Amino acid sequence: MLAQLLAEVRAGTVTPDDAAEQIGRLPVYKAVAQAVVLDHHRELRTGIPELVYGASKTAEQIAQAMAELNKDGGAIATRVDPAKAQAVLAALPGATYHELARIVRVGGVPARAACGRIAVVCAGTSDLGVAEECALVAEFLGAPVLRVGDVGVAGLHRLLARIDDIRRCEVVVAVAGMEAALPSVLGGLVDRPLIGVPTSVGYGVSVDGLVALGALLAGCVPGTTVVNIDNGVGAAVAAVKIARLAV
Amino acid sequence: MLAQLLAEVRAGTVTPDDAAEQIGRLPVYKAVAQAVVLDHHRELRTGIPELVYGASKTAEQIAQAMAELNKDGGAIATRVDPAKAQAVLAALPGATYHELARIVRVGGVPARAACGRIAVVCAGTSDLGVAEECALVAEFLGAPVLRVGDVGVAGLHRLLARIDDIRRCEVVVAVAGMEAALPSVLGGLVDRPLIGVPTSVGYGVSVDGLVALGALLAGCVPGTTVVNIDNGVGAAVAAVKIARLAV
Amino acid sequence: MLAQLLAEVRAGTVTPDDAAEQIGRLPVYKAVAQAVVLDHHRELRTGIPELVYGASKTAEQIAQAMAELNKDGGAIATRVDPAKAQAVLAALPGATYHELARIVRVGGVPARAACGRIAVVCAGTSDLGVAEECALVAEFLGAPVLRVGDVGVAGLHRLLARIDDIRRCEVVVAVAGMEAALPSVLGGLVDRPLIGVPTSVGYGVSVDGLVALGALLAGCVPGTTVVNIDNGVGAAVAAVKIARLAV
Amino acid sequence: MLAQLLAEVRAGTVTPDDAAEQIGRLPVYKAVAQAVVLDHHRELRTGIPELVYGASKTAEQIAQAMAELNKDGGAIATRVDPAKAQAVLAALPGATYHELARIVRVGGVPARAACGRIAVVCAGTSDLGVAEECALVAEFLGAPVLRVGDVGVAGLHRLLARIDDIRRCEVVVAVAGMEAALPSVLGGLVDRPLIGVPTSVGYGVSVDGLVALGALLAGCVPGTTVVNIDNGVGAAVAAVKIARLAV
Amino acid sequence: MLAQLLAEVRAGTVTPDDAAEQIGRLPVYKAVAQAVVLDHHRELRTGIPELVYGASKTAEQIAQAMAELNKDGGAIATRVDPAKAQAVLAALPGATYHELARIVRVGGVPARAACGRIAVVCAGTSDLGVAEECALVAEFLGAPVLRVGDVGVAGLHRLLARIDDIRRCEVVVAVAGMEAALPSVLGGLVDRPLIGVPTSVGYGVSVDGLVALGALLAGCVPGTTVVNIDNGVGAAVAAVKIARLAV
Amino acid sequence: MLAQLLAEVRAGTVTPDDAAEQIGRLPVYKAVAQAVVLDHHRELRTGIPELVYGASKTAEQIAQAMAELNKDGGAIATRVDPAKAQAVLAALPGATYHELARIVRVGGVPARAACGRIAVVCAGTSDLGVAEECALVAEFLGAPVLRVGDVGVAGLHRLLARIDDIRRCEVVVAVAGMEAALPSVLGGLVDRPLIGVPTSVGYGVSVDGLVALGALLAGCVPGTTVVNIDNGVGAAVAAVKIARLAV
Amino acid sequence: MLAQLLAEVRAGTVTPDDAAEQIGRLPVYKAVAQAVVLDHHRELRTGIPELVYGASKTAEQIAQAMAELNKDGGAIATRVDPAKAQAVLAALPGATYHELARIVRVGGVPARAACGRIAVVCAGTSDLGVAEECALVAEFLGAPVLRVGDVGVAGLHRLLARIDDIRRCEVVVAVAGMEAALPSVLGGLVDRPLIGVPTSVGYGVSVDGLVALGALLAGCVPGTTVVNIDNGVGAAVAAVKIARLAV
Amino acid sequence: MLAQLLAEVRAGTVTPDDAAEQIGRLPVYKAVAQAVVLDHHRELRTGIPELVYGASKTAEQIAQAMAELNKDGGAIATRVDPAKAQAVLAALPGATYHELARIVRVGGVPARAACGRIAVVCAGTSDLGVAEECALVAEFLGAPVLRVGDVGVAGLHRLLARIDDIRRCEVVVAVAGMEAALPSVLGGLVDRPLIGVPTSVGYGVSVDGLVALGALLAGCVPGTTVVNIDNGVGAAVAAVKIARLAV
Repeated sequence: MLAQLLAEVRAGTVTPDDAAEQIGRLPVYKAVAQAVVLDHHRELRTGIPELVYGASKTAEQIAQAMAELNKDGGAIATRVDPAKAQAVLAALPGATYHELARIVRVGGVPARAACGRIAVVCAGTSDLGVAEECALVAEFLGAPVLRVGDVGVAGLHRLLARIDDIRRCEVVVAVAGMEAALPSVLGGLVDRPLIGVPTSVGYGVSVDGLVALGALLAGCVPGTTVVNIDNGVGAAVAAVKIARLAV
Repeated sequence: MLAQLLAEVRAGTVTPDDAAEQIGRLPVYKAVAQAVVLDHHRELRTGIPELVYGASKTAEQIAQAMAELNKDGGAIATRVDPAKAQAVLAALPGATYHELARIVRVGGVPARAACGRIAVVCAGTSDLGVAEECALVAEFLGAPVLRVGDVGVAGLHRLLARIDDIRRCEVVVAVAGMEAALPSVLGGLVDRPLIGVPTSVGYGVSVDGLVALGALLAGCVPGTTVVNIDNGVGAAVAAVKIARLAV
Repeated sequence: MLAQLLAEVRAGTVTPDDAAEQIGRLPVYKAVAQAVVLDHHRELRTGIPELVYGASKTAEQIAQAMAELNKDGGAIATRVDPAKAQAVLAALPGATYHELARIVRVGGVPARAACGRIAVVCAGTSDLGVAEECALVAEFLGAPVLRVGDVGVAGLHRLLARIDDIRRCEVVVAVAGMEAALPSVLGGLVDRPLIGVPTSVGYGVSVDGLVALGALLAGCVPGTTVVNIDNGVGAAVAAVKIARLAV
Repeated sequence: MLAQLLAEVRAGTVTPDDAAEQIGRLPVYKAVAQAVVLDHHRELRTGIPELVYGASKTAEQIAQAMAELNKDGGAIATRVDPAKAQAVLAALPGATYHELARIVRVGGVPARAACGRIAVVCAGTSDLGVAEECALVAEFLGAPVLRVGDVGVAGLHRLLARIDDIRRCEVVVAVAGMEAALPSVLGGLVDRPLIGVPTSVGYGVSVDGLVALGALLAGCVPGTTVVNIDNGVGAAVAAVKIARLAV
Repeated sequence: MLAQLLAEVRAGTVTPDDAAEQIGRLPVYKAVAQAVVLDHHRELRTGIPELVYGASKTAEQIAQAMAELNKDGGAIATRVDPAKAQAVLAALPGATYHELARIVRVGGVPARAACGRIAVVCAGTSDLGVAEECALVAEFLGAPVLRVGDVGVAGLHRLLARIDDIRRCEVVVAVAGMEAALPSVLGGLVDRPLIGVPTSVGYGVSVDGLVALGALLAGCVPGTTVVNIDNGVGAAVAAVKIARLAV
Repeated sequence: MLAQLLAEVRAGTVTPDDAAEQIGRLPVYKAVAQAVVLDHHRELRTGIPELVYGASKTAEQIAQAMAELNKDGGAIATRVDPAKAQAVLAALPGATYHELARIVRVGGVPARAACGRIAVVCAGTSDLGVAEECALVAEFLGAPVLRVGDVGVAGLHRLLARIDDIRRCEVVVAVAGMEAALPSVLGGLVDRPLIGVPTSVGYGVSVDGLVALGALLAGCVPGTTVVNIDNGVGAAVAAVKIARLAV
Repeated sequence: MLAQLLAEVRAGTVTPDDAAEQIGRLPVYKAVAQAVVLDHHRELRTGIPELVYGASKTAEQIAQAMAELNKDGGAIATRVDPAKAQAVLAALPGATYHELARIVRVGGVPARAACGRIAVVCAGTSDLGVAEECALVAEFLGAPVLRVGDVGVAGLHRLLARIDDIRRCEVVVAVAGMEAALPSVLGGLVDRPLIGVPTSVGYGVSVDGLVALGALLAGCVPGTTVVNIDNGVGAAVAAVKIARLAV
Repeated sequence: MLAQLLAEVRAGTVTPDDAAEQIGRLPVYKAVAQAVVLDHHRELRTGIPELVYGASKTAEQIAQAMAELNKDGGAIATRVDPAKAQAVLAALPGATYHELARIVRVGGVPARAACGRIAVVCAGTSDLGVAEECALVAEFLGAPVLRVGDVGVAGLHRLLARIDDIRRCEVVVAVAGMEAALPSVLGGLVDRPLIGVPTSVGYGVSVDGLVALGALLAGCVPGTTVVNIDNGVGAAVAAVKIARLAV
C-alpha cells in the first residue's frame, strides 16, 4: 500500500497531505502544561475526543489541558479526587465537579455523531460511583443514557421490574462488584450488546475486583464483553462506539 | 476439666472408659492393607462414618478398606477413576460403580440418624459429576435427596420452574462452575441453609474453579457457605449434618 | 410453572397478589437517603431481615436506613468505623456502638423464629473482633450464643477444657486466622454443623487471610463449610438458618 | 411491573401467553441425550441460537444435540477435538469438521437478522485457531467476515498494509497472545468497536494467556472490550450483536 | 495410651496430676487485661516462655501482660510501633524500647537452659530491623548471639571476611530480602543448621517479600529451613531450640 | 582475612593447600557421565555428602554418578520414577529401589558423625511417600529415625497415643498436606526443634501444596521452620545437621 | 517527519522507494506453507534474521520455512521436540538435530556483522538445555561463544575457578533455575553487561520458573537485565545485539 | 585456579596484593553513618560507582554517604521523597533535588569511561518520573542521553516522527506502564539493544505494574531484555554497561 501511495504522491495524483491523512497519522500536536501533550486530531482518527485522565496529573495540568480542549466546545476530566478538584475549579472558570463520579466538567457537549440509547445498570449502591462515571462520559460523548440502579440479583424482582426499560436501549452496560452475577442474569434476558464493568467493591477474596472481573469473563452467557476494573470511562467509550452504529 | 475428671477417676466416681469417652478419643483402630488405618469409631465421635477417599489409594487398598467397612452394612469410595474401579470391582464381590460420580458402592445403607430433605441443584451439564457425587454420598448417609439439573441463570425460567420443589427441602446444595451465579440467585429466592460447591468447569480465567470459588465467597447474599472446589463429598457431609437437625 | 400459574390467575383461582407472592418477588420498596433502597420484604423471602452494611455508606445514609428498619422493632449496622459511628449515634437517638465488633445497634430484637444454640469459637485474641461481629448479629437474629475465646491449637488444653460446652450447641462457628488449624481439630471432636470464618490476622504469607481461607477449604475433615474472610455477618446468618432447623 | 401485569391477566387485557412472553421466560424445553437440555427459545430471547459447547459433552451427546438443532436449518458445535469429531461425523450425516477451529458444522446457515461486516484480525500464526473459531461462528450467525492474518506489531508494515480493509468493517475483533500489543495499535488507528481476544499462546510468564488478558484490559486506548482467554465464540456473538445494530 | 493411663490412675499407680502432666495439658491460666489470656505453663510444655505479640494488642494490654510475665524475671514484647511503645513505657516502670527492632523489654533475662552460639547474618542495611528483632529475642531466650551485618552477595568479599567467625557458631540465621541469595552462598560454605528469614524489603516484584521467600524455599543447597516473611521472632525461637541441643 | 592469609602463604607459615582449605574451596572435581560434575569434597565443606537428584538426570547419568559416589561406601539417588529405576538397577549391581519413596540405594551407610534421634511424623496415608523419602535419607546420613504415621489432627487420639515416643526424639519432622494443621498441634505439645514439610496432596485450592506451605509458614506456634513442598530430602538434611548437635 | 518526507517525494528529491525504506516498512513477503508468512526483510530492519519458532508449527511448516530461509545460507528452528524433529529431518536434506537444545539446523552460518564474545554461564546440569539453546542461536547469529557449565553458588569455588575466562568476554548470559542466585554473585564480580535467563527447573514453589524470574528481577546488583523463563533464544538475540557494539 | 595462584604467591612470582586483586575481593571499606557501609572499590570491580538507594535510609544517612562518595567528584541518591530531600539538602551544601525523578545530586560527574548514546523513550506522561530517573542516572554515569517522551502506541504517528532520532542511539531504553506495548513496536523498528522498564502506572489489573512486566517479558520480538518494575536505575546501569562497548 505504502509504495503505491508514495508513487502516486510522486506522480502528483495524491497530495502529500492526503497521503499522510490516509495513513492516519497527522503529526499535529503542541506542548501544554510542560509534559502534557494534547492530541486534537484524536477525534478525527478514532471518533472519540481526548478525555483528561486526572489521576496522574496535577491540578494545574488538568486545568490547562481542559482549557485547551474546551476550545472545541467542552471538556471532561476523570479520576479527580475532591482536593484536586477544588484547585481545578479555582483555576478553570465555569467548571463543575461531580464528587460521586470524581469528574470535572467545563463547557457543554460539542456536536457529536448521532448515537443510540445506552442503559447503565448498577448492581449495588457501592457501585454507583463507577456507574455514574460511565453515564456522564457517555453523555459527554453524545449518548442518551438510561440509569438503572440497585438491581442486584439478590433481589431479582427489582431487576425484572426494570427489564422492559433496559430492553428499549441499544447497548447495555452492567456495573457490578463482589461476585458480579448481574451481567449473567441480564445476558439471558436481553438481546443487546452487553458490556460488563467489574468494580473493586468488597472485602476478603473480592477486594480489588479480581473476583468480579473473573466472574464476568467466565460468564456462561456468550456475547458479554468486559473492561478493566472500575473502568467506567472505557465502558462509556465502547458503548458509544457501538451505539453510534445503531442510527 | 481434665484434672477434675482424672480426680473422679481416682475416686472411682467415673470409670476409665467413661473418662476416655468424654474426651472423645477411643484409641481403637487396626491396620488394614498395610498403610491404611481405618477409624471405626469415627461415626461415634462425628456422626459420619469413614468414607474411602480413592484418589490416593491403590485398587487393592480401596477394596480392603471397603470390605472392612462393609461389615457395618455398607461402604462407599469416592474419586475412583474407571480403570481403578474395574480392579476394585474384581476384588470386591457385589460392588457397583457410578462412572459419572466416580463412586464405588458396596452393601446397602446402614441404619442412620433421621435426616431432612436435601436439594442438590446443578447449574450446567458439565457440573453433573460433582452434583451426583454429592447426591450419592448424601443418600449413603441417610438423606432423601432431590436432584435439580441444568438450571443455570442464563435460562432463568428453568430455575423458576423448579423453585417450589427446592423450597420444600430443608437444605440446598448449589453446584456451579464458571462464574457461579446460581447460588446468588438462589440465595434471594429461598430461606434455607445454602451450601455452594464451586466446580473446575471452564477454561481461560475460570480453569481450576478459582473464579467460581471466589464468586461464591464474595456473593452478596449473606448466609451462603462454601466448600472446596469439586468437593461434592464435603458438601454432602455438611448438608447431612444440617438436615439431621431438622427432624 | 409460570404459564400454569398465569392461567390460574386468568381463571380467577389464584389472585394476582398470591401469584406474585409465589414467585417470591413483591416489588415493594421505597427510596431512603437518596441512593439506598431498603427491602422490607426480604425477611419474608429469605427469613433474614436487611442488615445495614456500613462500609460503603455515609453516616447519614446509615442513620436513615436504621431509623427506617427500626420501625420493625430494631436494626443493626455492621462495618462502622469509630468516627462514622459517632456521627450515626448523634443522628439516631438510642443507638449504641460496639467498637470491637464495629457494630451500631438501635432498638431491641424483633420477634424471630425459634432458633437452636450457636457456639462462636475463637482461636486468638486478634480474631475477637470478627467473632464478636458474628455473635452480635446471631443474637440480633434471635439465636442464643455461646462465646468461647482464645482456644487456639497451640494450647490444646484450653480447647479441650471447653469442648463439652461446645458440644451442647447445635451449630459451631470457628473463627481463626493465620494457619486456621482450629476448625480441623474441632471437626474431629464434634458432630455438629461447623462453619469456618477465616480472618485477615497475620503478616507475611498470611496477610489478608488467604492462607487461612485456603487452609479451611482444604481441611481434611469433611463437612466444614466456609465463608469469606472476616465475614462474621455471613457466618451468623448461615448459622441462624441452620439452627432454626433444630427447633 | 409484575403485579400490574398479573392484574391485567386477571382482567383479560393480557393473555397468559403474552404475559409469560413479556417476562421472557417461556418454559419450553425437552430432554435430549439424557442430560442435555436444549433451549429452542433462546434465539427468541437473546437473538442468538444455541451453540453446542463440545468440550464437556460426549460425541453421542453432541450428535444428538446437533441433529435436534439442525431442524432449524443448521447447527454448529465448538471445542470438538479430532477424535471426538470423527465419532460425531460418523453419527451425523452431512456434518463436516474444521480441525484448526475445532468446529463441527451441519446443515446451512438459517435465516438471520441482517448484520454489518466483522473484521477478525490475528497477530500470529499461533492464534489462527481461535481466530478461525471466531470467524466461523460469526458467519454461522449471519455476519460477513473479513479475515486478516499474521499482522503482529513486530512487523508493523503488514498491519498498515491492511488497515484500509479493516476500516471498512463495522466491528473489529483482534485476536492476540503473548503480550497482545495488536489491539493497542489497532485502537489508535480505527474508530470502530474493537473486541480483544487474548489467546493462551506462549510460554514462561505468558503461558495460559493471563498476560495477554491483562495487557488487553490495561490497554491505554479507551473503548476496547475483552472476552475470556481463547474465547473465539464469545467474541463472535458479541461482534454479531454489535454489527446487527449497523444495518 | 489414654485408656491405660486412666486405668493406672484408677489403680492409684499414677496420680491425677502426673497423668495430666504426661498428656501435657495443665489447664492453668487466668484473665489479664480482659481478653488477653496468659499461658504461664507454656515454658514447661514447649521450653519457650510466652512472648507478647504487640501488633494486635493495645498499649494497655501489652503493659499488663508484660507486668504479669515480668514476675518470672523479665518480659519482652515485639512488633510495637513507636507511638504505642511510648504508652507502654509510661505504664511500665523500667521498660526500655529498641526502635529499630520494634521491641519493648522489661526486667532481665530469667534463668534459661544452656544454649549454643547463634550467628545472625544480615544481607543489607534494610534488613537490620528484622535481624535485630531476631538477635534480641534469641538473647532474651538465653543464647549468645553473633551479629554479622551488610554482607550481601553483591560484595562477596565482605561475607568471606567474616566466614570464619560464622563457622564458630552452632546455628546460623540468615536474614535477606530482595532476591535472598545470601543463604544459598552461606549454605555452601558452612556445615551448621541454617535458618533463612525472608524480609519484605524491595519494590516491584519483590514487594512484600514473596520473591525472597520463594528463593529461600527453592534454594539449591539442601538443609536450609525457612520461616515466615519478616519473622525474626520465629527464627530466634527455632534457633534457640536447636542451639540448646549443642550443650 | 584474605590479605593476611596470602601474606602468610608468602612467608611460608601457611602452605598453599592449607590456605585453600581455609577458604573452603578445594577445586577438585572430575567429569562423570559427560555433564554431571561430582563434588567429593562437599562433605568436607558442609558435612553432607552429595545426594544424586534423579529427576533431571538420565538413568545412565544416575548409575554412573552413584557408582562413583559408592566408592566412599554407599550412595543414594532420589526422585527416581519406576521406569528410570529399572534402568538404573540394571546398570548398577547391588542397587535396590524403594518405590513409595522413589529412592535408589547402593552400598551401605558410610561412617558418619554421631547423630541424635529424628521423629518423622506423617499426617495422612497420602503423605507417606514424602515422609519415607525423608526417613531413608536421614538414615543414609547416619540418623536413627522413628516413623509415626497417619496421625492427622482429625483423629487427635492417634497423635496423643504416640506423643511420648515423639518427645523422646531430639528433632521432629512433620509431613503434612492439605491444610497442614499437624505441625501447629505438635508445636504446642513438644519442645524440640520442629521442621514442617508441606506436601502437594489434595485438590481444588490445596492442589500443588501452596495452601499447606502457607499454613506452615503462618502457623501460630513460633519456632517451626519449613522446607519446600514435597522436599523430604531437604528436611532430612536439616534434621541431621540439627541432630548432630545433640551428641 | 512524514509530511516533510512526502513533500520531498512530491518534489522528486526523494524517490518513493527511498521514502518507504526510511520508514522501515518494505511490504515484501510471500506465503510459505499456507499460514506461515516469512519476513525476509526482517534482518534489514532489525539486524536479526527470522528464526523459526517450532513449538506452534507442524513438521511440514518447519521444513518449508527452513528451506526457504536456507536460501540465504542457513536456517535454524527452535523448540522442536524429538518426534517432530525426525519428520523435519526426513523432509529437509542436510538438516541436523541437537536434542538437548531442541534445535534443528540446516546449512551454514550466513555472513553476519562482526560480534564480540559471549559467555553463556549455567548454574546446574538441569539448565543445560536452555543454555545450549542460547549458545547455538548466538553462534548462528555470528557470535563466538564461551560455555561455562555447572557453576552454581552452592559450590562457589567452581565459579571462581572460571571467573577470569568469563571476564574476558564482552557480554555474559547467566542461565539459572530454582532460586537463581548465580547472576547476583556474577554481578558483583564482572563489569560486563549481564543478561539473566530464568529456567523452569525445580518443584514446589519453584515450579514453572516464577521464583527464578522474580529473584533475577529483584536482584540487588543494578544492571542485570532479564528475559522470559526458558527463553534462551531471546537472551541470544539480545546478547548478540550488544556484542556487535563491541567491535 | 586458586591453588595455582597460591603456589605463585608462595614462589614470590605474584604478590599477595595482586593475588587478592585477581580474585576480585579487596576487603577495603569503612563505617559511615553507623550502619551504612560504603564500597569505594565497587567501581573497580564492576565499572559502576555506588549509587545511594535513598528509600531505606534516613536523611542523615543519605547525606553522610553522599558526602563521603562526593570525594570522588560527585554523588547521586535515588528514591528520595520530597520531605526527606529537604533534610538532605539542608545537611549537604551544594546538593540539588529533582522532584519528578526523586533524585538528589551533589558535585559534578566524575571522569568516566567513554560511552555511546542512550535513548530513553517514554510511553505516557505518567511514566516520566521513572524515565527521568533513568536518564539522570545514565548521565551521571557518563552517557549522552536522548529523551523522547509521550510516544505511546495509541498515537503511533508520534513515535514514527521520532524514530530516526532513536535509531541514531546505540542503546534504547523503553519505559512503559499499563499494557506496555511500546517496546514491542519499537523492537520491530530498531536494530539496537532494547531494554524495557515496566512502570506501576495504572489501576485495576494493571496496578503495581505486573501486567506491564509480563507483557514486556512475553513480547514477541526476540532480543528485548527487562528490569524490575519502576527500576529506572537498573535500566540506566545496564544501558551504560552496554553503551560503553560501543566506543
